Amino acid sequence: MHQPSPLLTDFYQLTMAYAYWQLGKHEQEATFHLLFRRHPFKGDFALCAGLGSVISLIEHWRFSDDDLAYLASLSNANEEPLFNQAFIDALGKLSFTGSIDAVPEGTVVFANEPILRVQAPLWQCQLLESILLNFMNFQTLIATKAARVCEAAGGDPVFEFGMRRAQGPDGALSASRAAYIGGCVATSNALAGKLYDIPVRGTHAHSFVTAFDSEPEAFAAYIKTMPHQASLLVDTYNTVEGVKHAIAAGRVLREQGADLLNIRLDSGDLADLSIKARALLDEAGFQNTGIIASNSLDEHVIRDLKSQGAKINVWGVGTHLTTAYDQPALDGVYKMGALKNAEGEWTPRIKLSEQAVKISNPGRHQVRRYFKNGEMIADVIFDLDLGLDTLPKCTSIDGNTVVTLDDHDATQDLLEPVFVSGKRVQPDRSIHHIQEHAADALRQFRESKTTPYPVYLEKTLHDNKLALIQAMRA
Amino acid sequence: MHQPSPLLTDFYQLTMAYAYWQLGKHEQEATFHLLFRRHPFKGDFALCAGLGSVISLIEHWRFSDDDLAYLASLSNANEEPLFNQAFIDALGKLSFTGSIDAVPEGTVVFANEPILRVQAPLWQCQLLESILLNFMNFQTLIATKAARVCEAAGGDPVFEFGMRRAQGPDGALSASRAAYIGGCVATSNALAGKLYDIPVRGTHAHSFVTAFDSEPEAFAAYIKTMPHQASLLVDTYNTVEGVKHAIAAGRVLREQGADLLNIRLDSGDLADLSIKARALLDEAGFQNTGIIASNSLDEHVIRDLKSQGAKINVWGVGTHLTTAYDQPALDGVYKMGALKNAEGEWTPRIKLSEQAVKISNPGRHQVRRYFKNGEMIADVIFDLDLGLDTLPKCTSIDGNTVVTLDDHDATQDLLEPVFVSGKRVQPDRSIHHIQEHAADALRQFRESKTTPYPVYLEKTLHDNKLALIQAMRA
Repeated sequence: MHQPSPLLTDFYQLTMAYAYWQLGKHEQEATFHLLFRRHPFKGDFALCAGLGSVISLIEHWRFSDDDLAYLASLSNANEEPLFNQAFIDALGKLSFTGSIDAVPEGTVVFANEPILRVQAPLWQCQLLESILLNFMNFQTLIATKAARVCEAAGGDPVFEFGMRRAQGPDGALSASRAAYIGGCVATSNALAGKLYDIPVRGTHAHSFVTAFDSEPEAFAAYIKTMPHQASLLVDTYNTVEGVKHAIAAGRVLREQGADLLNIRLDSGDLADLSIKARALLDEAGFQNTGIIASNSLDEHVIRDLKSQGAKINVWGVGTHLTTAYDQPALDGVYKMGALKNAEGEWTPRIKLSEQAVKISNPGRHQVRRYFKNGEMIADVIFDLDLGLDTLPKCTSIDGNTVVTLDDHDATQDLLEPVFVSGKRVQPDRSIHHIQEHAADALRQFRESKTTPYPVYLEKTLHDNKLALIQAMRA
Repeated sequence: MHQPSPLLTDFYQLTMAYAYWQLGKHEQEATFHLLFRRHPFKGDFALCAGLGSVISLIEHWRFSDDDLAYLASLSNANEEPLFNQAFIDALGKLSFTGSIDAVPEGTVVFANEPILRVQAPLWQCQLLESILLNFMNFQTLIATKAARVCEAAGGDPVFEFGMRRAQGPDGALSASRAAYIGGCVATSNALAGKLYDIPVRGTHAHSFVTAFDSEPEAFAAYIKTMPHQASLLVDTYNTVEGVKHAIAAGRVLREQGADLLNIRLDSGDLADLSIKARALLDEAGFQNTGIIASNSLDEHVIRDLKSQGAKINVWGVGTHLTTAYDQPALDGVYKMGALKNAEGEWTPRIKLSEQAVKISNPGRHQVRRYFKNGEMIADVIFDLDLGLDTLPKCTSIDGNTVVTLDDHDATQDLLEPVFVSGKRVQPDRSIHHIQEHAADALRQFRESKTTPYPVYLEKTLHDNKLALIQAMRA
């Protein structure tokens, strides 16, 4: 896959990098955390995704000669070159030399937890910000949406069908990848199938039917040319008639040793039509023929159709999944936590805000997940430089509650090393492995009894944060 | 820019193409129309965009050896190769040989009007469907959103700032391009600046401030390194204090013959804070320093802030513009209108639906726009094979009203030739030219007095459609 240029960043990252570089501050080491502040879709979790794209980006992160020529062409408000040549030459030599720790794709994560930590020279941290957010925000959003849709489908297969209304080619491709991580079993997007090794599925369009003089003629043509691929769309003219025509095609298929695999409904009252279609198919001896449904489906519509007794076996979910229609952006942010001073010590950094939830957490963080009898009981954000007690004292994110986690029998640190000093240390994970990991993680999360799931700050981290806020406000 | 492979299509386009090919029907000429059925954002228009990407795609539309190897690897339900080698070889030789007519980018268009017409061998029409929809749906959506946002800003400059929460890299890039067409004056996306020749703008991040020991120190560092680029973000710790620190930096700038160009507000009550900031700046003699505002802005928030007397000069609009947050997908469709029979005559085609608005219009269409004294008065969809009278008799889209357009003094046909028999006939249009065309088109549309703007079907086309519906239902 073609990698985006490092120019795919917010312009201010380049001007800030230029300022740091002129001040000789660009190589100063910094730590940034990527996190989101609210669960998407008014839900209670998110499913982490996007790291695969991040890894591939970092490995190819080089400005091309073309990119540098473009930067050299830019002017400031005084009509002089914006960047000097020495800076542009320095960009030309740049590659990633820092460390990245990240939560594995397909892990269930929660608001306020860092899901990615970058520790690198300041200008590298800054230049990478926008694209890290772009990848992680969008893919986490879609993986979460897919998990919700698959949960509503209750084990029925869900196909992702959204390419035509996705937000651009990558909007479609990354969405197919993230939807597969979230539990979809296939995509309609053939290029996603090739690039990501995801199964591809589809039926045919209404236009296939209108390309023939009648529906029976169209179905006959389809099964003649692809007897072992027979999923027929039945609503081009009249759904019930369409089902009858599909059954007739199914009889022909059986004479040839094949079978009618599925019919697809794409309009009208899907509950009512699927019940009628099921009855017609069963009566005709096509009990094994599946019914695929599509048409503006999402988790709410699927639940509703199920509660009406719809006889649907496969859910084709497009626009509402691929664009995360009811919340098309995750509010991920990327905040500086610490800066290394001249003495080589990490100094915590904070950004204030009138809204308490928008005040960043100072330090360099890890997230530890606590378990009891195999069940998730709480996550704790702690500062690597402050450490964490065996039975840690914690506060809620807002600091209003204090608890001690004194009853657990296992822990897991969520952020795992991906790059160390510019070298990739984490091997490739297959998308199928990630999908399985996600299914396990979701099952484990649904078995956890505390709702909402608690995310704490380690108490010393919290106290240091308060002290820092007071110092900055003074 | 890297062109997407023809594999970036819905898988069923490939299986349908295979069926047509096996039947010897793939070269049969067809006409498809791309249109949308509802104005986005509950509005009264859309601004057409996406054709630039379509042109570039068509010119590079070739399956690679890799793509073909992937297709050869796919199996059907009987564990046999899904496609035979002769078909894969045929795909390997495929390029676009048909004709495309399209409404120029930056034109104001309306629901139900074809904005793109493809006339090509059936399999080519089909293989292109998904990507044409992807490009046109998304870019038209964002150009329309940008036009609405810029209209609310009432002539103030609008910067597009959405990359970090966009739906993938192309979600960001195509959105920057479409937003510029819709009236934004700049983007924060540096790669969009390079690829599309769009001005790039930005200030700096909160992290730039937290990288120093205090805000005055950060501002001093910024103006020292970039005296002619001074737009300072003032809300990292406390906005009013931040404005005072920016003014102090501005005084230093003036001593050096430069000036404080802008301050930026990114949180809090933007109306109140901008009024306070304006007063502080004016008092200190910085009447020419602009105030940039950002933070979840859209057309509604901008109107609201303006009605509260906010003193904001530049609007930085991100997530809500780039993802079209309140409606993240346009409902564009691509419907077969006609098929050429063995005698070389075009035969109209129709897809039925229980919902009247979803019944496709049969035939091969053009859209004629009528003017009176320079003012747009109505659009008429007509069939190329049926023609159009000088004073045409028309019906509303639903057929309920009949009118004769007998009072007009000029007309314009909206669909213009782009490709003819596989050859591109339309020269490149610069994005700046397209942006100007859009501004003119929007002005002209706002001057039209008939609301909602009428879109008619030519009456013979409407009558033929009714007859075809009756014939299909019989």
